[in-house]
Parts: sequence; structure tokens; C-alpha cells
Amino acid sequence: MKYLVINGPNMNLLGTREPDLYGHESLDTLMSTLTTWARGVQVEIQWIQSNHEGELIDAIQQAASAYDGIIINPAGYGHTSVALRDALLASSLPSVEVHLTNLAKREDFRSRTLTAGAALGQISGFGPTVYSLAVIALNEHLEN
Amino acid sequence: MKYLVINGPNMNLLGTREPDLYGHESLDTLMSTLTTWARGVQVEIQWIQSNHEGELIDAIQQAASAYDGIIINPAGYGHTSVALRDALLASSLPSVEVHLTNLAKREDFRSRTLTAGAALGQISGFGPTVYSLAVIALNEHLEN
Amino acid sequence: MKYLVINGPNMNLLGTREPDLYGHESLDTLMSTLTTWARGVQVEIQWIQSNHEGELIDAIQQAASAYDGIIINPAGYGHTSVALRDALLASSLPSVEVHLTNLAKREDFRSRTLTAGAALGQISGFGPTVYSLAVIALNEHLEN
Amino acid sequence: MKYLVINGPNMNLLGTREPDLYGHESLDTLMSTLTTWARGVQVEIQWIQSNHEGELIDAIQQAASAYDGIIINPAGYGHTSVALRDALLASSLPSVEVHLTNLAKREDFRSRTLTAGAALGQISGFGPTVYSLAVIALNEHLEN
Amino acid sequence: MKYLVINGPNMNLLGTREPDLYGHESLDTLMSTLTTWARGVQVEIQWIQSNHEGELIDAIQQAASAYDGIIINPAGYGHTSVALRDALLASSLPSVEVHLTNLAKREDFRSRTLTAGAALGQISGFGPTVYSLAVIALNEHLEN
Amino acid sequence: MKYLVINGPNMNLLGTREPDLYGHESLDTLMSTLTTWARGVQVEIQWIQSNHEGELIDAIQQAASAYDGIIINPAGYGHTSVALRDALLASSLPSVEVHLTNLAKREDFRSRTLTAGAALGQISGFGPTVYSLAVIALNEHLEN
Amino acid sequence: MKYLVINGPNMNLLGTREPDLYGHESLDTLMSTLTTWARGVQVEIQWIQSNHEGELIDAIQQAASAYDGIIINPAGYGHTSVALRDALLASSLPSVEVHLTNLAKREDFRSRTLTAGAALGQISGFGPTVYSLAVIALNEHLEN
Amino acid sequence: MKYLVINGPNMNLLGTREPDLYGHESLDTLMSTLTTWARGVQVEIQWIQSNHEGELIDAIQQAASAYDGIIINPAGYGHTSVALRDALLASSLPSVEVHLTNLAKREDFRSRTLTAGAALGQISGFGPTVYSLAVIALNEHLEN
Amino acid sequence: MKYLVINGPNMNLLGTREPDLYGHESLDTLMSTLTTWARGVQVEIQWIQSNHEGELIDAIQQAASAYDGIIINPAGYGHTSVALRDALLASSLPSVEVHLTNLAKREDFRSRTLTAGAALGQISGFGPTVYSLAVIALNEHLEN
Amino acid sequence: MKYLVINGPNMNLLGTREPDLYGHESLDTLMSTLTTWARGVQVEIQWIQSNHEGELIDAIQQAASAYDGIIINPAGYGHTSVALRDALLASSLPSVEVHLTNLAKREDFRSRTLTAGAALGQISGFGPTVYSLAVIALNEHLEN
Amino acid sequence: MKYLVINGPNMNLLGTREPDLYGHESLDTLMSTLTTWARGVQVEIQWIQSNHEGELIDAIQQAASAYDGIIINPAGYGHTSVALRDALLASSLPSVEVHLTNLAKREDFRSRTLTAGAALGQISGFGPTVYSLAVIALNEHLEN
Amino acid sequence: MKYLVINGPNMNLLGTREPDLYGHESLDTLMSTLTTWARGVQVEIQWIQSNHEGELIDAIQQAASAYDGIIINPAGYGHTSVALRDALLASSLPSVEVHLTNLAKREDFRSRTLTAGAALGQISGFGPTVYSLAVIALNEHLEN
Repeated sequence: MKYLVINGPNMNLLGTREPDLYGHESLDTLMSTLTTWARGVQVEIQWIQSNHEGELIDAIQQAASAYDGIIINPAGYGHTSVALRDALLASSLPSVEVHLTNLAKREDFRSRTLTAGAALGQISGFGPTVYSLAVIALNEHLEN
Repeated sequence: MKYLVINGPNMNLLGTREPDLYGHESLDTLMSTLTTWARGVQVEIQWIQSNHEGELIDAIQQAASAYDGIIINPAGYGHTSVALRDALLASSLPSVEVHLTNLAKREDFRSRTLTAGAALGQISGFGPTVYSLAVIALNEHLEN
Repeated sequence: MKYLVINGPNMNLLGTREPDLYGHESLDTLMSTLTTWARGVQVEIQWIQSNHEGELIDAIQQAASAYDGIIINPAGYGHTSVALRDALLASSLPSVEVHLTNLAKREDFRSRTLTAGAALGQISGFGPTVYSLAVIALNEHLEN
Repeated sequence: MKYLVINGPNMNLLGTREPDLYGHESLDTLMSTLTTWARGVQVEIQWIQSNHEGELIDAIQQAASAYDGIIINPAGYGHTSVALRDALLASSLPSVEVHLTNLAKREDFRSRTLTAGAALGQISGFGPTVYSLAVIALNEHLEN
Repeated sequence: MKYLVINGPNMNLLGTREPDLYGHESLDTLMSTLTTWARGVQVEIQWIQSNHEGELIDAIQQAASAYDGIIINPAGYGHTSVALRDALLASSLPSVEVHLTNLAKREDFRSRTLTAGAALGQISGFGPTVYSLAVIALNEHLEN
Repeated sequence: MKYLVINGPNMNLLGTREPDLYGHESLDTLMSTLTTWARGVQVEIQWIQSNHEGELIDAIQQAASAYDGIIINPAGYGHTSVALRDALLASSLPSVEVHLTNLAKREDFRSRTLTAGAALGQISGFGPTVYSLAVIALNEHLEN
Repeated sequence: MKYLVINGPNMNLLGTREPDLYGHESLDTLMSTLTTWARGVQVEIQWIQSNHEGELIDAIQQAASAYDGIIINPAGYGHTSVALRDALLASSLPSVEVHLTNLAKREDFRSRTLTAGAALGQISGFGPTVYSLAVIALNEHLEN
Repeated sequence: MKYLVINGPNMNLLGTREPDLYGHESLDTLMSTLTTWARGVQVEIQWIQSNHEGELIDAIQQAASAYDGIIINPAGYGHTSVALRDALLASSLPSVEVHLTNLAKREDFRSRTLTAGAALGQISGFGPTVYSLAVIALNEHLEN
Repeated sequence: MKYLVINGPNMNLLGTREPDLYGHESLDTLMSTLTTWARGVQVEIQWIQSNHEGELIDAIQQAASAYDGIIINPAGYGHTSVALRDALLASSLPSVEVHLTNLAKREDFRSRTLTAGAALGQISGFGPTVYSLAVIALNEHLEN
Repeated sequence: MKYLVINGPNMNLLGTREPDLYGHESLDTLMSTLTTWARGVQVEIQWIQSNHEGELIDAIQQAASAYDGIIINPAGYGHTSVALRDALLASSLPSVEVHLTNLAKREDFRSRTLTAGAALGQISGFGPTVYSLAVIALNEHLEN
Repeated sequence: MKYLVINGPNMNLLGTREPDLYGHESLDTLMSTLTTWARGVQVEIQWIQSNHEGELIDAIQQAASAYDGIIINPAGYGHTSVALRDALLASSLPSVEVHLTNLAKREDFRSRTLTAGAALGQISGFGPTVYSLAVIALNEHLEN
Repeated sequence: MKYLVINGPNMNLLGTREPDLYGHESLDTLMSTLTTWARGVQVEIQWIQSNHEGELIDAIQQAASAYDGIIINPAGYGHTSVALRDALLASSLPSVEVHLTNLAKREDFRSRTLTAGAALGQISGFGPTVYSLAVIALNEHLEN
């Protein structure tokens, strides 16, 4: 299995961005730990990060031919982007939406995402663990 | 580790209740598969199901002395119960909220739960897999 | 035909509870008049009343194996209970929702019920007559 | 007893209009079946149908001198007409509001009617049966 | 005078539940201090606590024959229960609603209760003192 | 000066319709008293009443060539009719909107009218006097 | 008859304040024209103006012993003052609310006043004429 | 092809009604230009205009047997009429909704129509051109 | 202990203002009964009343140097005054908000006050008793 | 005439993206059919597609010097982008907004676009035909 | 240039009022620092402070004849006063609204002011600096 | 001191874009006037402009290592971008939000920005002056 992990705006600041909220680990470290762990469950991970909504949409579109599933942390764009939702709906790949923090404990405007309805499901609130949970969820989904 | 899985109203109908939505497996089967699997990751599972809001609150309160964590599928009560939310907030145990279906694809009144803000996080939309994902999430949380 | 009549919270106070609004007849009298009348149209009535939301859900679940239809007066729980709605949706039996008073003339929060969408239909506002109308409606439905 | 049945806009299309929703019987057939049946319970039925809001109001106003009660299916005007509500409130006759379909299962803007608060009560969701239920409800009301 | 004090869900956790918010005294201690103090103003106090909405309703219904007034801390159920409101409205006893914390300083969904409109009045925000204030309020009311 | 008084739905029931609210005088009496009084201030009054929204619109359109001003009591249509508002906006005649009752004391949905913004102004709440006040207001307006 | 005309905040700027909207006549001129005219209909007018909400309330309270009615232009306070509404409700005098401009054509927050529900009725939109119309309305009211 | 063009309330005032907004051409001229032009694309146009909501519904109902498609400018009724929407939904003919002005630039209550969801699509904002665009849209639709 | 009782707008009309709602006792009587009673619990009461929002704010500001606590009945200003809320928040004194009537039974716009969140707590609905309950609440608070 | 057709996010997936909704034709085919057809009405078409909001804005800005009009299908950005609206408002070119599907039949959040108010008008719901209708609309507009 | 600085309710408590939020400097100090600094840019400052809404309105009205501009910190009245807004709109002087704290970080009801729309612009969130920024903004405005 | 001025979408059109609203000066001229002036207060200015949300986020992220503060005119993105807000929150630099026009006088959807809560404060409505006011505000902030 080969999954693409798509990280949205400001995720490149992980480790320095509000560390009490998002943790002290950088995105590089987090993604490379994930990649190593995923190999143990027969999954190849590739990942990207972008602050550009259009690049996230491009990535979703191009993933169809090269991957078996998508793990997406849409960050701030999840709350406002109909275009991102449409890209996921248009994709033939299953996707899982993840958030490091528990959205239900954040500002009111973060309590829903437009994108979640276009994914298999949503995992939020367990820090970096959400990525490996998403890998397992995709594995289970694709095996059935 | 020892976790209590709390299943809310109508979960006892699993397998017969709207099977296109909730699957064909009964709650007994699902919980016993979970229990067996959990042993493999050093976790002892006990579970209850009740249609009574008060019994769910009682269970949360009593769990504190006998378990290390709670996995709760509040079902219909998740959307309406301040009392359940207060029980989770009052508990010293970490909890994970799970839903078999992706709430973002359901009726509008299911899109938020009052209880999610009292848990570590929420996992929704992957069918029975949500329970094992919750076990892993609790394990990760308790190890850190 | 055999129907279960389910009466929700505070219905046991009928006759003494706000009699200008709900009438002077007790629930016992009302139900036994109904039972007698129903025999005349070949229907056997059994009835319960509970102030406990969980018991109402239990009753709906257990009705499936012993009855042909459900008549439910959800009273106060009709306005707030997703769990009750889910129990009706999960049931294989047809159901009719009844209210003694015309909800459209009451407080604003009574103008809709969550449960009505899970029933065949709703009858509200004619006092005790709503129960016999519901019997006829179920009969008509089951004959077609 | 003599009741006037008032059918609102598009009810003349019954049988051809969205038959999955409203059934295959024409309004003529339905009303004449009702008339015959009603004679059996000592009730004389007369009926009208109009697509004109003003004619429905005229009919309600003129009914007072010639009928003992009104059965009204306001159809689409029920959701939008304060004028129809005022006509019913101004009338000295008791009225029953009926709908062939269960409004709680339809579009959100159909979930309430302005007119229901001006009637004795509302019956919705049992197909053509709603008319005979309304006759019985009026009979019961006028006997008490 | 004889008053029944009804404590709602999670009140049995007093002393351990979010003590910064609700104080360090257990419900037992608090109620027995109240009972002793009340004797000094000629009032006999009995109290119950339940996490079950139905039991709270049962208690209100049964109080009518044995008490002169009700003091109710509906806790989480106050914000969501039409059934509890109906039980209080149906009761012939005067009641006072109390809350240990000032609801106007809490989450937005706590700022109103459905039950307050069915009581004589509401006292919120002074910690355990609210119970003795309620006793005095009931005394004053019953003397006039 | 020559003014057309346009009376909306159910105004023909004046005197019998909820007399506590609308008074005991019939529309005929009221209009003929107005006509007589108006002659004293050099104004010729003609009036119509219709329960048909379309006829009210027709009347507004045709008034332009024969009258100097319009006095309109839109009754129930005032709250729901964009078409009536458009007819008044399209008219070259000045108009005054009147209501017998004080809308601010009625149901919430009566507190605003769509039509008022298309008139010179609104007079509500003084019973039949509103018509003669409207005549004076039009006179003053046309003199300036 | 003796009426008190109460003018709210910024009415003292009449003539210079947004003259396209409110006209070129000063409040002094307007009030003295009114006073002269009113004598012709046997009415003695006294008037005040204040920018202070408290002074307007004081004036309403003190009017009871010296006047037969109140004409109030609450200006900006009409939209925001529960206290002013309460003063009018507490008064034994009938009152008429007036506005120089048609509120239905202004900003959305001006479309309702809290005070109108405490008056006999409301007259808005005819410029200075609203004051004399209010005198006539009060006269009519007090004669009946 | 034969299309019926249905024009709603106040459209008969075209040319004199707010000409800056709706243009200086009369409806007669506009419709006869359209008829002539339509012949060039093999389409026969007939048209009606009515200020009566009921007549518009009647027209839609009767069109089914005589036309291939409907072009409707519902004008003010589009924003308020569930009955008109139901008539279009009940019709077997495809329809196109047109508006002379761009609704997105008008008052907020004009920004949506209830009827648009019952048509193939909506064209708004290009003046008289919207009618010929609708003819082309119907032609394209019926050819596929 | 020395407390200042601050009474808001229209409270000076107590006894004559809507006596069914607010009682027949004048504010003078009520305050002097309170003062006498308070001496019995070692509390010196001084009181003011004003219809002027600014004077209420001035009073709160000046109280800090001369009193141990504030009892405030903000009356109508409680629902609309951010400035009053700010004055209480700025004060170093504890305060208790009181209302003679049960706000939960009044108009919707009275159901919340902006000021309650700036006080220790709120007591509403027991008539004049609310003042003595507030004295006791302050005493209890200051002793702890 | 020379028009620029701007296609928003995910339009490049046309033909494969939800074909039941958006059709089976690719954007390339659709645009080249349009280009050929447009030559027949003396119009030169150039087109772009981008998933990047910023590129769409750039395109609108640069169009001013090289084109006579803009046809824009903003897709998902139409519902969320104030920046796109501002770009259209700032442009000296007339524009037409098009949508392949009838927005009034889609999810609620698609029922309005922020951009429509900055265009001449909007055409939605006729599939690929919307582009040629837009060309005609622009031609008509530029000829007048 | 001569500007009047108007400070609203509770601003006289500056230095002692919630100093973490509003700073430790008193209003006197702050205003006299401002006055001295302003002389350096050729501006004469006079200032007032009042807790009375009416006095603030009086001050705005009287400023017209003696000053070139107004700097207003409406404090709590900014969020609730239509009357204050009207006073600024009626004034011939340019005004600048200032707030010491960043309103966008405060309670939701502080996020907008009714008064801002009547000023040249708004400056919020930089502590005492907002006053000197306002002086510069007025200078720039009056020079152009 | 070294500040980065970030200009959002369509700001590059300054001078030609709706000049009545935004002025006739180009962004280049405006920024170079600012740069020159800033040198006089010991501040070095660099600036960028982009129509791409992602580039604005990139710029905020990269500013941290090279500047002492940020001045941002988010233009249209300020009203819709959670991602931009997150970038500012993640930044270690103080920022000031500026708008050329007074947002309180514009369309309703412009009255709040998501980004303002992430800045020190907001300055809006004085034209180009807002940039120099922001420089002074940052200077004052960094000196304290």
C-alpha cells in the first residue's frame, strides 16, 4: 500500500508554532517517524506540505494515479474550503482527515470542517498519533 | 492496561439496525473480536451497553477506580446530553469518543457532540475499526 | 392485530396534570377505554408508561417480536431525544406519534419533535381521540 | 353533520403529481370514496379544490353558515400564508388540518405550517386515510 | 415544613468533581450540614441524588403527597430536559431551582435552563449557600 | 383629492372576526363613516376589499390613473408578499399603510411588514382611527 | 386635554441634523407650530427634549399626575431601551410613539422599537405631521 | 418546439415600473420581439402575464398538454411561493427560471427563490436577453 | 458589614407599577423593612434608586471606598448595559444581582442579563425576599 | 469580440469528476467545442483553468488589457472568496458567472456565491450550454 | 487645531480597573501626557469623561462650535448606543473612535460597535497610544 | 527597526480600483512614500503584495528571522482565512492589521476579520495614513 500524507497551511511550523497546543516535534521528524513505522505495516508513505490551497488541490488530483489512499491534515483550510472538499469528492481514492488537536475544544469556528464529509472519517485530538491511526484505518478499509 | 468500552442507546441492535449504515455484525461479536485483538496489545477490555442515560453516567463514575481509560460510543445521547459531558469532565480517566459512521455525512443535528469536548479526541466513520483505533490512541496517550 | 401503546414522561399524571390543557381523565381510564374500543376493530392493545427515556427505548426494541405496530406519545422526550428517534428508526414496526394537545399552539420549543420523522405520521391536538385515530391509521397502513 | 373539505394548490394533480410521494389515486376518486364512507358515519361531505389562495379564504369564510366543520389540506399555502391562518382564526367553525405525507420527513421549510395553530389539530403522513381520520376527529370534537 | 432536595446528575461526585469550580465538600457533608441548619428554622429536609432523569421525574411526582416544597439542582439535565420541566409544571408543590456556580460565567449552553420557568425562581452562584437560601425562599413563600 | 382605500384578506369579516381585537364595527359601516368624514376635508374616498392577493395588486396598478393616493391595509399579505411590495414600489402614487391593531403587541411574525418600506409611512394600533389619520397624512403630503 | 410631548436624543438638532432626512425646521419651530395648532382642537401641549435616557424616564413617570396622554419620539433610545419600555408600561397614561422618518426604509437595526409595544400605537414616516396625527389619535382614544 | 412564457406579478408594468432597474420596453413589445426572434430558431412562443399566484399555477398545470417547455419569470412570487414550486415539481415539462435583474445585487430577501430548485436552471441579470437565453437553453436541453 | 443596595430604573414606582407582577409595597417601605431586618444580622444597609444609567455606574464606582458589598437590581438596564457590566467588573466589591420576578417566565429579551456575569451570582423570582437572600449570600461569601 | 473564460478549482477533472452531476465531457473538449462555436458568432475565446485562487485573481486583473469580457466559472471558490469578488469589482470588464449544475438543487452552502454580485448576471444549471449562453449574454450587453 | 477627547463610562477608573487589561496609568496622567505631546504637533487637546450616555451626546453636540475634530473612546456605550451613533452622524466634525484593547480578542458582544460606522475610522488595541494615533489621523484628514 | 508590510489581494490595483473608495495613488507610490517617511522615524520598510493566500502565509512565516514587526493589509482574505490567522498566531513577531477604508461602513460581511484577533490591534478607515499609523504603533509597542 502507498499513501500520500497531505499537510495543510502552517503545518511546516510544527515544533515552533504554539508548542503547548501542537507539540515540540517538527513536521520533518514527525513524518519520518511515521514513514519508518508505516513500513512495519507494509505501507509506503510519501508526504507533502503546502501553505497554498491550490497546491493541496493539485496534490489530491495527482494522487489518484500513484497512491492507494490519502491522509489529509487540512489545517486552517478545512474550515473554509469548498474547493478542497470538491477535490476530495472528485478523487477516486479513499481519504482520512486528521487533526492534531481535539477540534471540539477549540474556537467555535473550528468545530466543523467542510472537508470531513468528503473523507471516510475523521480522527482528531491525539497529537502525532492521528497519522498512524489514519494509516491503520486506511489499511482496514482497503482490506475489506 | 484495562479499558472500559461504554456503548450507548440502540447499540445493542447492531447487526439488525439499519445494516447498510451500521454493518451486519452484532455488538456481541464486535466486542468479543475487539477483546481478543486487544489482548494482543496488552489491553484488557470490558464492555457494557445501555439504553439508559443514567446508567451510562453511573458507569463512567464507577470506572475511575477499576480502569485506566474509557472508550465511549455515546450514540444518540452524544448530541443532547450535558449530563454525560459533565460525567466525563468529572472523571479522572482519559476517554476517547468513537462513532461507527462519519457524523459529517449524517443529518445536521448529528454533526456535533456535546461529549467530544470532554474526551481526548474523537474517531468517527470507519465502522468497527474505530474501537481498535481508540485502544491504540489510549495506549499511546498513557505511555506518554 | 396487536399494538403497543407507549406513553412517555408525566403521562401517568393525566387527570391531575394541568387539567385545562390535558383533560380530567386518568391514563388508566383512558387506556382501558381505548383497549375496549380497540377490540371492536379487532385490535389488541397493551400499554406501558415510563418517565425513563431508557425504558421507552427498551420497550420499542422489545416490541418488534410481539406486536404489529407502535403508538407512541413521547411527551417531553419527543422534543429532545435523538436516542428515541434512533430506536424508532431501528425498529421493524410501523409507528404513529400522538400528542393530546396541538403542538402548534404551545411553546415554541414544542413545535417540532425529533421523533416524528421516524414514524409513519403524527396526530396531534384532539385529546384522547388521538389514540383511537392512531389505531385506525395503523390498521389502514397494515391492510395496504 | 356536514363538513367542507378544502384542498389547496396542486391537489387537483393527485394521481399524476409525484405519485411515489402522493399516491396514484386522483382527487376525484379520493373525495368520492371519502364521501361514500362518510355517509356511513352520518356525515355529509362537500369538497372544493383551488390553486388560488383567495378562493380558499373565501371558502373558509362562506363555510360558517352552511357547515359544522372544516377539513383543510392547505398544501403549499400552509407554509407561507398568514392570510389563511387569519381566515381560520376568524371562523366560528372547528377545523382539522391534514397532509398526505409526513411533513417531518420532507424539506425543512415544510416542517411547520402557519395554519396548524388555527386548527383543532393536525394529522399528517398516512396518505388518503388522513381525510377519514379528520372526519372522526371532528365528530368526536362536536359530540363533546 | 418538610422539603425535598433533589440533586441531579454528577452531584454525587461533589468534592472530587472539578473542585476549583464546585468546592471540596462532598454531597453527603453538604446535605447533612443543610439538614442540621434547616432544623433551626423549623424545616425538615430529605434529599436524594440520581444520575437518572427518570428517577428525578419520579421523585418530583411522588413529592406532592409528602412534602411542602421542592429544592432542585437539576445540574446538566436542567439545560436539556423538557420532561423535567413538565414534571415541575405538573406538580402542585412550589419549587426553587439552585446552581452552585454562576451560570452566567459558564459555557454558553449553560446560560439558560428549561426548568427555571417552572419554578418560583432561581438562585445561582454562591456555592453550598444556595441550598439554605432556597430553604428561606420557600419558607417566605409558604408563609405568604 | 381622491384616495383609494384597499383592504386586504379577512377585512370583510370586521365586526365578527375576533371582535376583542378588531372591534365590533363592520367594514361597510367603517368605510362609510370614513367616506362621510373625508368629504369634510375635501377628500373623495372609494374603497375595495379582497381576499385575493392578485386583486390587490391589480387594484394598486389601476389606481394610478384615477386617484391621488392609496391607503392600504394589507392585513395578512403585508407580512408575506414581495409581489404587493413591488406593486406599491412600481406605483406613481403615494401610499400609507395602516393596521387596526398595534403590530408590536401581536405574534412575532406580525412585527414587520414587507410592504411598509414601499409606503410613505405606517400607522398602526388605533382601531378605525388609522384610516382618517392616513387621509390627513396623505393630504399633508400632497400639499407640500 | 393636556398632552406631554417627549423628544429623545438628538432631536434638539432638528433643522441642522441630516436635513435631507429630517427636514429643515428646528424643534422649537416644530413644537410651537404644533402647540398653536393643537389649541384649535382643544389640546394643550407641553414639550421637553433630552439626550439623557434617565430624564426621559423621569419625564414619563412625572407626567402621570399632570397630563392626559404622552406623545413620545424616543429616537435612538427606542431601539435599545428596555428601561424606557418599562417606564411606559408602568405609566397609567396612554401614549403614542412617533418617528419623523419611515423606519422600514432605514438601517435594519431601526426596523423595530422595544417601546412600540408599550404604546397605543405607532406613527412613522410623515415628517412633522406625525405629531399632529398623534394628537388626533390620543383625542380619539380618550373620547371612546 | 412550443414554449409557454409565464410572467409573474407586476411584469405588466414593464417600461413604466422603475425603468432604471427594469428598462423602458413594455412587456408587449418585449414578448413580441421574443416571439419573432424565436421563430428564427424554430420555436413558437405563447405568453401570459398574471398578478394572481393561482393563475400562474393554473397555467403551469395546463401547459403540460400543449407545450414542450416553460420559461417562467416568477417575479415577487418566486421568493415566497411553495405552491408555485410544487406546481413546477408536479409538471412533466422542463422549465427555466429567468429574472431581468441580477438578484445577487438586490435586497437580501431576493437573493434566493423557492422556485429555482424546481427548474432546470436559472438565468438572471441580463435584461430582456434572459428570455432568449432561456429559449436556447430549453432547445439544447430538449435536443439531448 | 455595610452593603449598598442599588435599584435601577422604574424601581421607584414599586407598589403602583404593574402590581400583579411586582407587588403592592413601595420601594421606601421595602427598603426600610430590609434595613431593619438587616440590622438583626449585623448588616448596615444604605440604598439608592435612579432612572439614570450613569448614576448607577457612579454609585458602583463610589461604593468601593465605603461599603463591603453591593446588591444590585439593575431592572431594565441589566439586559442592555455593557457599561454597567464593566462598572461591576471594575469594582473591587463583591456583588449580588437580584430581580423581584422570575426572569425565565418573562419576555424572551429578559431571559439573560449582561450584568449577571459580573456578579457573584443571581437571585430572581421571590419578590422582596430576594433582597434579604442577597444580604445572606454576601454575608456567607465575606465570612469565607 | 474577445472573451476570457476562467475555470476554477477541479474544473480540470471534468469528465471524470462525479460524471452523473457534471457530465462525461472533458474540459478540453468542452472549451474547444465552445471556441469553434464562438467563432460563428464573431467571438474569439481564450480559456484558462486553475486550482489556485491567486491565479484566478491574477487572470482577472490581466484580462482588462486584452479582452472585452470575462466568463467565469468560479466553482468552489465562488462560495468563499471575497478576494475573487473584489477582483471582479475592480475590473473594468463586464463578466458573466456560470455554473454547470443548478446551485438551487445542491447543498445549502452552494446556494449563494459571493462573486455573483460582481458580475452582470448568473447562469446556472444547463450543463456545458451555460458557456455559450454566457457568450451570447456578453455579446448582447456589449452591443447595447 | 483643537480636538475634544471624549471618554466614556468607567474610563475614569483607568489605572485601577482590570490593570492587566487596561494598564496602570490613570486617565488624568494619560490625558495630560497626550495634551503635552499634542502641543508638539500643533494640536490643542481638551478632554472630558462621563459615565452618562446623555452627557456624552451633549458633549458631541456642543463640540461643533468649538473644535476641529473629535476623538471618542465610547467604551461600553459603543456596543449598545444608537443615540450616540446618531449624535456623531449629526455632527459636522470628523471623529476617530479609539479603544485601548483589541476588541477582536474580547467577548463576542464587543466585536462590533454601532458608533464606528459614524466615524472616519477606528483604532483599537495599542493601549494609550491609540489617542496619539487618533490625533495624527485627524491631522492628516484635515490637511487633505 | 525593520518592518515588513504585507499587502493582500487586489492591492496591486490601487489607484485604478474603485478610486472613489480606495484613492487615486498607486501601491508603488504609496509604499515608496511610506518607506521614505519611515526612515525619518528610524524604521526600514520592505513590502510585498500578492494575490495568493499561500504566498502571504509564506511571507509571514519567513518574516520572523528578518524583521521586527509586520504590518498587514489582508484585504479580502482577512474575512475568510483561518490559515492566515493561524500564520499570524504562529509568528513570534508583533503585527498590526490595517485597512484603507472604514470596515464598519462597508458590506456586512466585511465588518469583522478573522485575522484581527491575531494582531496587536487594528487600524481602519483613514486611507494611506493607516500604514504610517501602524509604523508608529509598532514603534511604541517595541519600545515598551
